[in-house]
Parts: sequence; C-alpha cells; structure tokens
Amino acid sequence: MEKAQAEFAEYGATGASIIELSHRGADFMREYQRADSFLRELLGIPENYHVLFLQSGATGQAAAIPLNLIDDKNKTAAYAVTGHWSKLAMIEAKKFCTVHIAADTVADNYSTLPQTIDIPDDAVYFHYADNETIHGVEFPATPPSSPVPLVCDVSSNIATRPINVSDYGLLYAGAQKNLGPSGVTIVIVDKSLLHPRAETPIVLNYQQQAEDKSMRNTPPTFQIYMVALVLEWILEEGGLEEFGRRSQQKQQLIYDVIDSSDFYHSPVAKDCRSRMNIPFFLSDDKLTAEFLRGAESKGMIGLKGHAVLGGCRASLYNAMPVAGAQALSEYMQDFERRA
Amino acid sequence: MEKAQAEFAEYGATGASIIELSHRGADFMREYQRADSFLRELLGIPENYHVLFLQSGATGQAAAIPLNLIDDKNKTAAYAVTGHWSKLAMIEAKKFCTVHIAADTVADNYSTLPQTIDIPDDAVYFHYADNETIHGVEFPATPPSSPVPLVCDVSSNIATRPINVSDYGLLYAGAQKNLGPSGVTIVIVDKSLLHPRAETPIVLNYQQQAEDKSMRNTPPTFQIYMVALVLEWILEEGGLEEFGRRSQQKQQLIYDVIDSSDFYHSPVAKDCRSRMNIPFFLSDDKLTAEFLRGAESKGMIGLKGHAVLGGCRASLYNAMPVAGAQALSEYMQDFERRA
Repeated sequence: MEKAQAEFAEYGATGASIIELSHRGADFMREYQRADSFLRELLGIPENYHVLFLQSGATGQAAAIPLNLIDDKNKTAAYAVTGHWSKLAMIEAKKFCTVHIAADTVADNYSTLPQTIDIPDDAVYFHYADNETIHGVEFPATPPSSPVPLVCDVSSNIATRPINVSDYGLLYAGAQKNLGPSGVTIVIVDKSLLHPRAETPIVLNYQQQAEDKSMRNTPPTFQIYMVALVLEWILEEGGLEEFGRRSQQKQQLIYDVIDSSDFYHSPVAKDCRSRMNIPFFLSDDKLTAEFLRGAESKGMIGLKGHAVLGGCRASLYNAMPVAGAQALSEYMQDFERRA
Repeated sequence: MEKAQAEFAEYGATGASIIELSHRGADFMREYQRADSFLRELLGIPENYHVLFLQSGATGQAAAIPLNLIDDKNKTAAYAVTGHWSKLAMIEAKKFCTVHIAADTVADNYSTLPQTIDIPDDAVYFHYADNETIHGVEFPATPPSSPVPLVCDVSSNIATRPINVSDYGLLYAGAQKNLGPSGVTIVIVDKSLLHPRAETPIVLNYQQQAEDKSMRNTPPTFQIYMVALVLEWILEEGGLEEFGRRSQQKQQLIYDVIDSSDFYHSPVAKDCRSRMNIPFFLSDDKLTAEFLRGAESKGMIGLKGHAVLGGCRASLYNAMPVAGAQALSEYMQDFERRA
C-alpha cells in the first residue's frame, strides 16, 4: 500500500501517476508483465493456459464461460449449486446453454457440500464455486475426478492455498478478495477449450482478449498494477504453502471459539467450513448489535453478516494477518465473558 | 490527485484505504452518490435518465447498446462511421441487430464529417461517435434533427463543453479521457428506451444495473471515487462553459502553428477539427523522431501518433491545462525555427 501511494504521485521517473500512464506504453506494459508472470509463478500455470485480466467481475464471467466454451454440437454444461454465488452463475448460464444440475445443497440451506456430484459424460464442462462467501462453505480439495473439464470460481479463495492448475479447464476470480482492488477479473483457461460463439461481446471473448493481451478494450490499469504488487508480496511472504498455513490458523482461531461454547454457533457442517468466510450467530440474537458495535470500536469493521444470512461473518482473506484473527478471537471470548 | 493520495492511505476516520472500503458500506455509497449527483449537476441530466457506472469500456457498451435497445419488432439500427471507434462500434452491433449505414467517410480517410446522414424512420436508434480520437474529427454540435433517438459515444469529449442531454436517447463514455482513470464506463440513458433482450449478460443489462445502482456486480470502487473527485474539480473550476472555452483555446494554440506554415500539416478538414485530439505530421517525416524526442525531454509525453495514422498527435483532454498547450505550441514553433 505504501509503494502504491508513492507511485500514485509519481511512477518512476515518468512525471506521471501510475493511473495516468497509457495502457499502450512501456511503463504500463511492464506492470502487466509483472502481474502475468507473478501469477504464473505463484499458481504454477502451464504454458498452455491463457491468463487474462478482464473486467466485469465473476458475474461477467458467468455469462462469458458458456459463450466461450459451449460448442455447436453440445450445449449442455453441468453446474453444482452450493450457495448464493454458484446459484447465480447457474442462472446466468441458462441464458446461453442447457444447464444440468449436478448437485444442489439448497435443502441444507447451503450449509453442507454435496455427497455425490452427477456429471453427464457429454457435458461440455462442470462448473462449481470453490468457496461460497455468504454461506461459508469451501471445497476442502479439488472434487473427485470429473469426466469433463472443471470450471471453477475461485473469486474468494484464489492464492490462499496450493492448487494444481492442470486439474482445471478454467479458473476465474474477481481480484477484490485476495489479490487487489475491485475492478479486475482474472481468467486462467486451457487454450484448447475455447470455442467463442459469434454473438459473444468482444469484451467477454476470451480468444480475442488473449490475442490482444487482455487489451481489446482499455484495461483497468490501476487494478492490474495493484494486483502485481499484491502478487509480489504473496511470493515474498512465502507463497501458497505459507498462505495456506496462515488461512488454516486464522480459521481455527475463530472456529475454536465458536465450538467451545453455546454462546456462538455456526450453521456450517464441520467438513466443509471455509477458511475465508466464517458466518456465525450469537445464540442470543439481541446481543448481536452490541457485539458488532464493540468490535467496530476496536477497529474490527465489516463483521456484520451478509443480508442473505444475517448474523455475523468474519472474512479472513490474505490481507488479514493471523494477529487480526487472534484479536477477533480474543474479543469474542471477552464479549462472551462480559455478557 | 493529492486528495486521492491522502485518502489512499486512510479514508476519513475509517482506518481503511479508499480501495479497501466495501462497495456495500456507507462510506463507498457516499462516494457513489457524489459521482452520481455531480454528473447530474454538471451535465444537467433530467430525472428520466438512468446514470450507470459500469465496466468494460465503450467496447462493452458497443454490444450492450443493441442488446438493451433493440426490440423484437424492429431490429434495425443506423450507424454513422466517421473513424476508427465508430467503425468498431458498428461492427460489434452487427452481432446483435441489423445495421444500416447512415454515413461513412472512409473515402476521405475519416478526415471529414458526413454532409448528409441517412437515418431510416423505422430504425430503433442512430449511433455516432461525437469525437474520434485517432482521426481527430469531432461533431461541432448535435447533428440535425433525427427521426429516431440519438445514441452517442462521448468517451473522449464528455464534460468538455455544454450539452443538452434531452437531445439524446443514450450517451456513453469510458472515463479515462476526461473523467478519471480507466476501468469505469458511464452510461446515461432515457429510461423509456430500455428493452433488454433475454440473452443479455447481467453485467451489460442496463435495466438490472439501474435497479441495483450499478452494483449487480461489484463495481470498480476506486474509479468511481476518482470520478467523483474529478467531477467536483470540473464544477469548482467553472463547469462546462469554462472547459468549453479552455478546449477551444487549447485547440487554437496548436492548429494556429500547424496552419501558419508548411512545416506541419493536418489531415483534418477545418470544419470538423477535434478540440481533444490533433493528429499532425511533419512535412519532412525524417524529423518526426527527433521532434518526439525533443518534446519528451521537455516533459511532453504521449505525442506519438496512434499506430493507425502514424505521425504525431496532441491530446488535449480536460486534465491538460491551457499552459500545457501553450508550451507545446511554443515547442513546435521553436523546433521549426531550429530545423
């Protein structure tokens, strides 16, 4: 953040702010290359994958994925619905392909993960969301072998644990949770899977964007610059193994408090608890507002639960240090003692 | 820029950077409201128009416009082709509607504006680009009365002169020329014109975005914040009348040099010269590289012409002070004397 603030005033010796640089100039291209190569190094992305820096968030990709992957012979794609975001992606896909529901945990109010996933052999791909931010469920590992390419929304847990990119046909992520500010979306896609349909808008056409280094339209230069800085920081701090360890530590600090008494409770099944988002409730809901006010007075903001679920939610993305989770854990115990 | 740099470190008393604020929180919503109300005030936008802050640039809107405006009864839209950008918008529109070419100045290498524009009475809208950044042509005023709603790309000259929004059905602009950093796109649209087609991606669906205050997907919070700051600055400096005056002064400073000798020449017809972009050539092309190096050594960057045209190009957006155009004018005269 401090480096970004300094370069906000003047980038190198250009006399211009980073946000004033032309996206076609050498200075910005260096930032673009940094973001690209740091991401390839961090995730171990093979050469046969495009890395794209696009706009419109995961919501935009929910449309772009069928538009780019579905071919004329086969229009079916399989979708697992395991929470708010995977459900929205499935609904959006219905505009552009035939959706086969491979699993749906709505009966459990999205507090579990599916026991079985039914993927037709002739589906073009299987889509799921690795982590659901509102419902707080996360796949503990890549799902068991799929007969078709995996397409995975990693918007909320990219770069938080080791991953084998070759297991996937396509990975996508809005940057705003773990990689930088909102306004840029990363798509990592096996080059051989692209069959863009003629009516795909240019901005969502992965083939065209890849040919023009994500610059078929003016890219969000500031965000790409910030993503490069964040990726560099993750690499310097020890990479995915290290952030995997930290995320488990942070998760355990909070869930240990929740599980150790009846004062707090979690709706999420133990075997699929997210390392990123921990929704929880005070058993006496009348205390929730006081709990949130007290947290805010200690500088812990953003603990109010999403409107869909209510209650509270701790989000433990990469930028949150272990000490932050420790502070929340202590506050939760302290609040319980004083209540 | 200085205010943005300070708030980059800490926004108000939040303890967080502007880029860390949640797009659902009160702090960011205040910034969003500032951007919305400053833009409405500056351009005089009536209540019956939506103002949207979207992503994907003008290129994204080139697809979104037919997707949102064309209805089932009538699929024809009229397009004027007056340069690089209006041609691309026309090509993109062909994916989603029947395009009628209302005018095309390619025979003049886009150095003129059309003498006549042929708009069918039953077209759904007429699309044109108010300013062409590469070819340097700009409509001096709103085109003569059209039988159908005007849809206008004002990406490169929004907020640079007074405009009567009610003359238009839809105005759109990437922010990066006159309103802020790249990564946010403004759409101003008469509410009564929207007929989004079922297969419109959510991120490009103006109706859905309007219902959710441009936040159907996570918005580019930093850009919207920056746009609010820039709009506030334009208002404080005297608004559109003042920036209209300044842009004419700047334009005249450069064209006076070009017209006063044979050393420089302009390909653009006099009655349609852009106030924003002035493409020009040195009559002795061998001197161009030296001219550009000399300019850069004086801190005048970005003068190389776009690859499509070559030569040189002066861009005189709102952020360029009159003194900047004055300095370029003097450098051009000085370079000519010394050559």
